[in-house]
Amino acid sequence: MSGSRAGTAGYDMSIIFSPQGKLYQVEYSFKAIKSGGLTSIGIRGKDTVVVAAQKKIPDKLIDPSTVSSIYKITDYLGCIQTGIVPDAKLQVSKARQEAAHFHHKFGYQIPPNVMAKKVADQAQLSTQHASSRPLGVSMILIGFDDELGPQLFKMDPSGAFFGYKATAAGEKEQEATNFLEKKFKSNPQLSRDETIQLAISTLQNVLGADLKASDLEIGICSRDDTKFRLLPEEDIDNQLTKLAERD
Amino acid sequence: MSGSRAGTAGYDMSIIFSPQGKLYQVEYSFKAIKSGGLTSIGIRGKDTVVVAAQKKIPDKLIDPSTVSSIYKITDYLGCIQTGIVPDAKLQVSKARQEAAHFHHKFGYQIPPNVMAKKVADQAQLSTQHASSRPLGVSMILIGFDDELGPQLFKMDPSGAFFGYKATAAGEKEQEATNFLEKKFKSNPQLSRDETIQLAISTLQNVLGADLKASDLEIGICSRDDTKFRLLPEEDIDNQLTKLAERD
Amino acid sequence: MSGSRAGTAGYDMSIIFSPQGKLYQVEYSFKAIKSGGLTSIGIRGKDTVVVAAQKKIPDKLIDPSTVSSIYKITDYLGCIQTGIVPDAKLQVSKARQEAAHFHHKFGYQIPPNVMAKKVADQAQLSTQHASSRPLGVSMILIGFDDELGPQLFKMDPSGAFFGYKATAAGEKEQEATNFLEKKFKSNPQLSRDETIQLAISTLQNVLGADLKASDLEIGICSRDDTKFRLLPEEDIDNQLTKLAERD
Amino acid sequence: MSGSRAGTAGYDMSIIFSPQGKLYQVEYSFKAIKSGGLTSIGIRGKDTVVVAAQKKIPDKLIDPSTVSSIYKITDYLGCIQTGIVPDAKLQVSKARQEAAHFHHKFGYQIPPNVMAKKVADQAQLSTQHASSRPLGVSMILIGFDDELGPQLFKMDPSGAFFGYKATAAGEKEQEATNFLEKKFKSNPQLSRDETIQLAISTLQNVLGADLKASDLEIGICSRDDTKFRLLPEEDIDNQLTKLAERD
Amino acid sequence: MSGSRAGTAGYDMSIIFSPQGKLYQVEYSFKAIKSGGLTSIGIRGKDTVVVAAQKKIPDKLIDPSTVSSIYKITDYLGCIQTGIVPDAKLQVSKARQEAAHFHHKFGYQIPPNVMAKKVADQAQLSTQHASSRPLGVSMILIGFDDELGPQLFKMDPSGAFFGYKATAAGEKEQEATNFLEKKFKSNPQLSRDETIQLAISTLQNVLGADLKASDLEIGICSRDDTKFRLLPEEDIDNQLTKLAERD
Amino acid sequence: MSGSRAGTAGYDMSIIFSPQGKLYQVEYSFKAIKSGGLTSIGIRGKDTVVVAAQKKIPDKLIDPSTVSSIYKITDYLGCIQTGIVPDAKLQVSKARQEAAHFHHKFGYQIPPNVMAKKVADQAQLSTQHASSRPLGVSMILIGFDDELGPQLFKMDPSGAFFGYKATAAGEKEQEATNFLEKKFKSNPQLSRDETIQLAISTLQNVLGADLKASDLEIGICSRDDTKFRLLPEEDIDNQLTKLAERD
Amino acid sequence: MSGSRAGTAGYDMSIIFSPQGKLYQVEYSFKAIKSGGLTSIGIRGKDTVVVAAQKKIPDKLIDPSTVSSIYKITDYLGCIQTGIVPDAKLQVSKARQEAAHFHHKFGYQIPPNVMAKKVADQAQLSTQHASSRPLGVSMILIGFDDELGPQLFKMDPSGAFFGYKATAAGEKEQEATNFLEKKFKSNPQLSRDETIQLAISTLQNVLGADLKASDLEIGICSRDDTKFRLLPEEDIDNQLTKLAERD
Repeated sequence: MSGSRAGTAGYDMSIIFSPQGKLYQVEYSFKAIKSGGLTSIGIRGKDTVVVAAQKKIPDKLIDPSTVSSIYKITDYLGCIQTGIVPDAKLQVSKARQEAAHFHHKFGYQIPPNVMAKKVADQAQLSTQHASSRPLGVSMILIGFDDELGPQLFKMDPSGAFFGYKATAAGEKEQEATNFLEKKFKSNPQLSRDETIQLAISTLQNVLGADLKASDLEIGICSRDDTKFRLLPEEDIDNQLTKLAERD
Repeated sequence: MSGSRAGTAGYDMSIIFSPQGKLYQVEYSFKAIKSGGLTSIGIRGKDTVVVAAQKKIPDKLIDPSTVSSIYKITDYLGCIQTGIVPDAKLQVSKARQEAAHFHHKFGYQIPPNVMAKKVADQAQLSTQHASSRPLGVSMILIGFDDELGPQLFKMDPSGAFFGYKATAAGEKEQEATNFLEKKFKSNPQLSRDETIQLAISTLQNVLGADLKASDLEIGICSRDDTKFRLLPEEDIDNQLTKLAERD
Repeated sequence: MSGSRAGTAGYDMSIIFSPQGKLYQVEYSFKAIKSGGLTSIGIRGKDTVVVAAQKKIPDKLIDPSTVSSIYKITDYLGCIQTGIVPDAKLQVSKARQEAAHFHHKFGYQIPPNVMAKKVADQAQLSTQHASSRPLGVSMILIGFDDELGPQLFKMDPSGAFFGYKATAAGEKEQEATNFLEKKFKSNPQLSRDETIQLAISTLQNVLGADLKASDLEIGICSRDDTKFRLLPEEDIDNQLTKLAERD
Repeated sequence: MSGSRAGTAGYDMSIIFSPQGKLYQVEYSFKAIKSGGLTSIGIRGKDTVVVAAQKKIPDKLIDPSTVSSIYKITDYLGCIQTGIVPDAKLQVSKARQEAAHFHHKFGYQIPPNVMAKKVADQAQLSTQHASSRPLGVSMILIGFDDELGPQLFKMDPSGAFFGYKATAAGEKEQEATNFLEKKFKSNPQLSRDETIQLAISTLQNVLGADLKASDLEIGICSRDDTKFRLLPEEDIDNQLTKLAERD
Repeated sequence: MSGSRAGTAGYDMSIIFSPQGKLYQVEYSFKAIKSGGLTSIGIRGKDTVVVAAQKKIPDKLIDPSTVSSIYKITDYLGCIQTGIVPDAKLQVSKARQEAAHFHHKFGYQIPPNVMAKKVADQAQLSTQHASSRPLGVSMILIGFDDELGPQLFKMDPSGAFFGYKATAAGEKEQEATNFLEKKFKSNPQLSRDETIQLAISTLQNVLGADLKASDLEIGICSRDDTKFRLLPEEDIDNQLTKLAERD
Repeated sequence: MSGSRAGTAGYDMSIIFSPQGKLYQVEYSFKAIKSGGLTSIGIRGKDTVVVAAQKKIPDKLIDPSTVSSIYKITDYLGCIQTGIVPDAKLQVSKARQEAAHFHHKFGYQIPPNVMAKKVADQAQLSTQHASSRPLGVSMILIGFDDELGPQLFKMDPSGAFFGYKATAAGEKEQEATNFLEKKFKSNPQLSRDETIQLAISTLQNVLGADLKASDLEIGICSRDDTKFRLLPEEDIDNQLTKLAERD
Repeated sequence: MSGSRAGTAGYDMSIIFSPQGKLYQVEYSFKAIKSGGLTSIGIRGKDTVVVAAQKKIPDKLIDPSTVSSIYKITDYLGCIQTGIVPDAKLQVSKARQEAAHFHHKFGYQIPPNVMAKKVADQAQLSTQHASSRPLGVSMILIGFDDELGPQLFKMDPSGAFFGYKATAAGEKEQEATNFLEKKFKSNPQLSRDETIQLAISTLQNVLGADLKASDLEIGICSRDDTKFRLLPEEDIDNQLTKLAERD
């Protein structure tokens, strides 16, 4: 057994507890998320909730329109995925099926928190049974709940999920979280524009780079338009301008 | 084989007996519960039964309303979960299904002790079969039985469960148990307020900290209102005040 | 491979025969029974059969009414379980199902010896197939057979079972067996009171302690009342008094 | 790898061939039969066939009526089992089911040789497939075939079976076989009494002990009474007396 | 890893190819056939085909009528089995089922070559899939085909099968094959008696022993009587006499 | 453990995460694609999309008409496969079934992006479950979407897929990608001829060889003819001539 | 771990990729084909296609009529198999079922290329899933396609297949291929006789031996008679004569 396994002694080769009660395969799956090179942001304003990420084309020849971390789950629910892309797509596929099944069974749209729970439960199963590995992806889910207003959830490979005022995932998760915590100390009631601009400025801050509209992708739900949609590039450009003016 | 496995020699890598008749994976799952950083309390009074825990938001950006160790299982049954959160949620989901199935089949609410047994039996299965790991969670279940009065059960990863006058789980389980044993020596018939306040003071005592109403969550069932519900923050605040006055 | 496996060389990591024809996992499961800290007694008198054990509350806060090694299987059959508690409960659940199934199929109560065989057959399966471990529990079963009179059986993790005049299981199994063998040398025809008192005195003897009524639990079936029931604390107290007077 | 595995090098940890074409797990299961401490005898006379064994109560407190190596399979077929008792009981249960199934399907009693084949085929399966271990038991089966007269078969863990004039199994199998071979050299046509007495004297000889009627159990089928039955203790006593007079 | 595995390095612990393209478990199963202590012969004459083997009673007490390497598969097909006896019986059972199934489906007897193919295909499966070991048995099958005349096939654990003029299996396979090759050099058209006598003389030659009629068993199919049957002892005796006279 | 596993320590023997969050089996499958000796190109022009590869006959005796990296999936969709050929064919078979199923279910042709997603999802499954290995193949898929125009996707063994302006796979993937990136810097709107010629010149460039029409195979979809078809050799020859003239 | 595994380090014990992207079990299965001692040839002429191999009787006693590497799949399709004979027969059985299924479903004979694909797909599955080993056989398939004329395919254990002008498999595959390449350099349009004679002379050349008609077996399909049939010995003799005259 080589040095790299010294502290884990084989407890990390399968879904079993270590003597310290750790599930190493789950911990390693978090590494997969951090090492993907992307950072995602989710922010909940007063009447708006957005997800945003740098749109990083892994290869100049890729058609940028096919690269997106943002996925529509239903007309009213969307998410940003960070980590292993194929795992992300599979998870979205299953979420869409769950949403369709829910709608068919109960006659109304699946609420954001129910969707979050179903995605998380699926992830938990991969941490308990021996026949598969955990999923290497973290989902930030947004939607607008008629009663609860804008909703923001994050689900990780362990099957955990929480609602958030703001959150981040991926390579610069820690830096983005620090940045956002400062901004949310005063518990601001962010307007639509403020919400979008905070998402953008968080990314700019942690990436240490000026971002153009085409470098960004932003998904949004708001009271005015509870449908989930991607912000058009012009709108992002607009917000960038306002953000620049504000500073 | 490295030093950390010296005493277990591989008997702890699967669900098998060690030469001493130990099931190591089950023992390791208890470590997972203790290392989660939370402590939960359950107390049964004369006509009241409560579960309580510190409400610890793992991340300042999390929407506190989505963080809770307390889960409603049916209108009349609730629990507090300590340990791996996704395991906890899965266990609650299964408990809800069992409860619904019972109600559908027998036409009345599942009694607390039947619920406790079903949760424990599910946990036992994970300790006997090779295809999965034990669940890393301890459930404290409360409810009001028409004949037996307030009911308090605790189920652990081994599949064991008992009824309790008072109990604790998690990081400070031992300290809380010591504290509660002293209080219960005289077999007190606690009133509603005393029950709630003892739960609070136990937490304050073992955490060595003054807790605010927003730092606490308390689930309750009582003779007056046999439905399981969460105590509103005002009520907790009230009890904190009374507790402070009493001391 | 560490020293503790020297004599077994891996033959004990699964359900396989050692070169000596041993099934180590089965032997280890017996260790689990002995290390549980409890001792159980079963005694068959002329017209009475009892099971008895010290009622040892693992934790002062536990509601003593929920701690019992004694389980009713049908109205006419009961048992005392020694070993891993969740395994014990699972085994009882399966026994109840078997009993209900038998009653439904044949229209009369399952006889004690048929029940014993079914419990033992279930245990045997866990010693032959690779997907699970043996059960870590020993069941002492009692009932009253219309033709055969009082019946006392013991089933162990290997799937073995025998009828007994008297038997013991658990931590002090050997000491209790020695004690009982002396008492049964003369093949006594024990009356109801003598049967109960011998159970109590055996426990007192091997535990080296005076036991109070509340420290004991006793299950009983007799010709007068073939239903299985727990002896009320007053009755146990009565018997303790008579026993004290007799000595 | 420790010394005890030197010659087998892991080929004995599962159902695979060793380089010498050996199936070690099967060989180890024979050890389990020999180490059980019991010896069984089967003898076929002219019109009678018996199985016999020492009735050895493992524990003085056991109800001797529940200890028996002899099992009735159908009204017309019985057997003596040597080896792991729970394996023995399972095998008998399956044999009874096969017999009932046969009777139901074909309308007549399952003949002894068909029964023998079915028991042996079941045993073979456990030596070919990876999911279970071989059975640790040897069955000596007797019955009376209308055409073929008294029938005596022995089935072992490998799935082999043969008809016998006389046979033995268990701890003193070799000694008993030697003794019987001498007696059968002249191909004697044993009467009912001679058959029973030879079974008894074989046991006495190999066990080096005078046996009382209560130390013995004998199963029998004969032309006069083709039903399988246990010889009552008086009859065994009778035979012991005759045997003593004869010597 | 001990010396005995030096050349195989673990490739022989399961059904996988070695770097040289070998399937070691299959090769080891051939060892099981050779080490059984028996030798079988099959010979095809002009209008007759026989299988023959020494009838070796493993134990003097065995009823010789239950020891046979020869099995009837259908009224028109029989075989001699060499190797692990329980494997042999299982293979015959499956062959009988296949034959019955064929007859039921197509309305005529299964031809010898179809039977051979089905037996071989079953054997092949055990060499390709991970869940079981190869069968340790070699079948020599005979029958009379209306068009093709006498038929003789041999199937081995690898799943291979060929038609033969004459063949042998088991301990002295090589010696018998050498002997038979010499006799068949001239491609003799053996009469019924010559066929039987050559089978006998081959066995006598390779076993270096004079065999009595009771030491032999011979199965036969011929143009006159296409049904498969065992040669009665008198007939074998007759042939032995003729053979002795001939020499 | 030999040196070649030093850095991976067994994490690469199955579908599990390494401590760094890597899935080694997936990474190794990419090696299989690169080591196949072929390079494939896909290029999307304004109204045309092509796939192209060197037609390399592995063996002079092979009928060149049966060697092709290009597969028709439906009348309107085709792909070029790079890597393990049998894996490639299996993947195409499954894609055809999916396409047929889609057409049957929805009544219209499966769009290129839906096809791409289904192929990728299948690949992802092989990276998550323990019972199989990842597929060792990379698919470049082309088709013409009525709304979106020419479509070009690449799917890899990880289950990832993107749309591309141009892309390459296989041995010279990196070189071809570099070459294509330069050509696409100016975001050219390639005509049909330019698209084909760029594919050819890319191959010539990275292979450092003049290619004849018979050394090439090119698949194409265009606005004029949305059906997927192979470019006839004359057309390729034509393009080669034009390309030579152009330079 | 012994030296023979030095370069493969366990990557060859199962169906997984090595760090170099190799599938060792597949490579080892090719060894099984080469080490079988046989060489097969397939040649496609203008209107004829043949398969040929030395007819090597492994044992002089074998009925030569039952030894053949050539198998009829349908009336119009045949093949020659090289490698592990039982694997070969299984593969042919499955091919026949596929062909019958195709005919039943579509109402016409399965075309040679479809058959080739189905055989190859089956082989691929054994290289991707963990529960079985690859097949150790290479199939050369011939048939006559109404449109395409004579067809010749070769499928190997990896699941690869190609059409060929001429091909070889087995021990002398390389030598035969070299010989055939020279002959096919000029792309000859071989007549029926030339096709057969080239097959023969290739075998004679690589085996370095004069072959008699009885040493050869040749399967053929031609425009005149599209049915697959074996060339009678007289015809082979004829061709041998012509070949000798020609030289």
